[in-house]
Amino acid sequence: MAKQTFQAPSGTRDFYPVELLRRRYVEKLWRDTSIRHGFAEIDGPTFEHLDLYTVKSGEGIVSELFSFKRDGGEKDFALRPEFTPTLARLYAAKANALPKPTKWFWQQTCFRAERPQRGRLREFMQWNCDILGEQSPRVDADAIAVAVDLLIAAGFKPGQISVKIGSRAVACEILKSLGVAATDEALQQALVALDKAAKLRPEDFEAECGKAGFSGSAYRERARAIESGFATGSTEASRVDVSSIAALRTELAALGIADWCTLDLNIARGLAYYTGIVFEVIVDGERAVAGGGRYDNLIELVGGPATPAIGFGMGDVVLALVLQDKGLMPSDDELLDLLSAPSASYRPQAFVIAANDAADAGVRPLVAQLRRAGMHARSSSKTTRNVGKLLQDAAAQKSHRAVILETADTGKIKDLTTQVESALMPVADIVATLRI
Amino acid sequence: MAKQTFQAPSGTRDFYPVELLRRRYVEKLWRDTSIRHGFAEIDGPTFEHLDLYTVKSGEGIVSELFSFKRDGGEKDFALRPEFTPTLARLYAAKANALPKPTKWFWQQTCFRAERPQRGRLREFMQWNCDILGEQSPRVDADAIAVAVDLLIAAGFKPGQISVKIGSRAVACEILKSLGVAATDEALQQALVALDKAAKLRPEDFEAECGKAGFSGSAYRERARAIESGFATGSTEASRVDVSSIAALRTELAALGIADWCTLDLNIARGLAYYTGIVFEVIVDGERAVAGGGRYDNLIELVGGPATPAIGFGMGDVVLALVLQDKGLMPSDDELLDLLSAPSASYRPQAFVIAANDAADAGVRPLVAQLRRAGMHARSSSKTTRNVGKLLQDAAAQKSHRAVILETADTGKIKDLTTQVESALMPVADIVATLRI
Repeated sequence: MAKQTFQAPSGTRDFYPVELLRRRYVEKLWRDTSIRHGFAEIDGPTFEHLDLYTVKSGEGIVSELFSFKRDGGEKDFALRPEFTPTLARLYAAKANALPKPTKWFWQQTCFRAERPQRGRLREFMQWNCDILGEQSPRVDADAIAVAVDLLIAAGFKPGQISVKIGSRAVACEILKSLGVAATDEALQQALVALDKAAKLRPEDFEAECGKAGFSGSAYRERARAIESGFATGSTEASRVDVSSIAALRTELAALGIADWCTLDLNIARGLAYYTGIVFEVIVDGERAVAGGGRYDNLIELVGGPATPAIGFGMGDVVLALVLQDKGLMPSDDELLDLLSAPSASYRPQAFVIAANDAADAGVRPLVAQLRRAGMHARSSSKTTRNVGKLLQDAAAQKSHRAVILETADTGKIKDLTTQVESALMPVADIVATLRI
Repeated sequence: MAKQTFQAPSGTRDFYPVELLRRRYVEKLWRDTSIRHGFAEIDGPTFEHLDLYTVKSGEGIVSELFSFKRDGGEKDFALRPEFTPTLARLYAAKANALPKPTKWFWQQTCFRAERPQRGRLREFMQWNCDILGEQSPRVDADAIAVAVDLLIAAGFKPGQISVKIGSRAVACEILKSLGVAATDEALQQALVALDKAAKLRPEDFEAECGKAGFSGSAYRERARAIESGFATGSTEASRVDVSSIAALRTELAALGIADWCTLDLNIARGLAYYTGIVFEVIVDGERAVAGGGRYDNLIELVGGPATPAIGFGMGDVVLALVLQDKGLMPSDDELLDLLSAPSASYRPQAFVIAANDAADAGVRPLVAQLRRAGMHARSSSKTTRNVGKLLQDAAAQKSHRAVILETADTGKIKDLTTQVESALMPVADIVATLRI
């Protein structure tokens, strides 16, 4: 008599100890990077009411969901295909009590009822980082920097990583300069036409653009000029207003990652949902390992106040494949030691403060440098120059130390437990001292 | 116009940052304790084919499951109500390649489609530890010790913890001494009758027992005598064979936890499924926070070879309630520091070896003491006295150090990287030296 045997459902994974250690390593990279950047972890249910997903993505998403019902007339539920709707629900429920900006990360499992294939499973891990409540090029750059720092922490070299940035604002400026009416409706229609570029023959693409009221080849030509300007850091006024993306480039440069970022105004994917920049992080010029953008309408859509928001997601399946391909997945023995090492410090190790306007230019570069050196670093979202108030902010956020910059490249370290202050020193010495 | 708002499904939880830190603390306690005891983590899919659950628990479980189907004739799936069926499936698939014993732990989320109430949710976290491939009182004691050490690590004092142990073997010995036929069927029927004791009036209970061929009050009387013997450590031959439970008591004593364990032969709950001892870990004499037992039939039931197994589970909901009630949940500030601390070492910090038969009695007490002092300690499952072979075993398991006992209470520490050996010292000094 044949015994009954059982397999895992197609598209799901069994994790024996060795596979589990590799997954825990990816999760540790995610968590440590999030914490170093000042994000706090949240979580929600594994399943939600189905309508939370349809309100964001439309009824079309239902066929991609594992949905189910309980007897007795209860509403439909669905396993989460992504976390953003839950995050929006959580934010909307407590919006008034939450700090601005609110920085949240999440890393758990998601489910898609698609046919499984290489790199796409029915159950997979996902990492999200979101910054809510503030709309600025600074916050946009901060979000991009987290995704880049994750890859640096995983061992990728700068030349292996690139970030492609699309911009709704600049795309719309070009479209308007080409005669598209300056209404949401007309611009949205034009963006949808642009999105079809990759899939169409050039003549069919031109026809689509023509229907939306502009010339596709003219769009491409103007886009290329602006993309080159972004690459060389030239922010001089062009035919259209590029101020939004010029400000983003300045912020990316402050964080030390401008050279890895390229502007790609052909990216229109998702701009119907996203409201500002969109970005994809690409390894070795081919594989997208993370993607995200600005979504300023979602919190209101689920019942909260109008709230700007930006975020990105990264899945474990593609990341693990890329780590393995590049020889960056540690050996089984190395994993035992790496997973025993302390996690990133949940309390900030350095809270960087500018003592005056001139010092302000040094704050964000130093924070970025400290984070990349493995430390949990923060700065204040307050605009005051009152050092006493800023030190209170540092203490309220439970920081071990404050760094008080007196110029953009010199400052003192203050221990917030003993209140002892160091001598004035160059920024390089501050990093070296804190690293110990 | 009223905005649409959304709530979490009933019986599920939203975790804002503070709640998530508390959950991560519980998960860290679980993981660190498992690792210190030499368990390796595994995981499987969040949902399985429905029949994996019905083969273990029968069709009756279906009403307690969140089950769903995909279009196109695929089989039914269900969200996991527990992990043990998945663990059995994983073990069965690779049984021949796995070490004996195999020690696995798991901690993730489970789902029950019951009406939510205090302490019982529809989605909750669960921690499982299982030891497979070996059947012995040593392994039974090892499993109980993990659950007890978790509570000690969480801050409970010995007087607050008790372990109630039920024994299928001893219960059946008593039943046979009372005239129940020595067949599986007759004994099983008698155990089912015993299980009803708590719910019935004495006279109805007697009637049930009578139908199963024995006197309930006589059972109680003989049980009480054996229970008292277990409490005082008296293992002298009684009217029935208590050797199985006497051996367990000896092993519990070696691990330093015999005094916290009581034999309770009224426990029959689950004995229809469990095949050996069952146990419940109880805090403050009232709240069961963990439960488990021996289940030697399950691996075969899912298509694997006949394999002895013992395990227990602990949920996060009741544990967190108890921690809060007892003032053992750290403050929000303390959590930031606790979660930043290193995890338990994934590599063993000490691998304890007996150089001769006399030293063997010291091995398990020392391993238990080292684990309780916060270290990852192991001993060999090999019975050889060849120190060279045992040191190879220690190295194969990636241990940092070996402790070579020359008597039950003296030994040397050998660094397995440098191969440097210490002088002979008393066990207390070994613990103090390793702790640094």
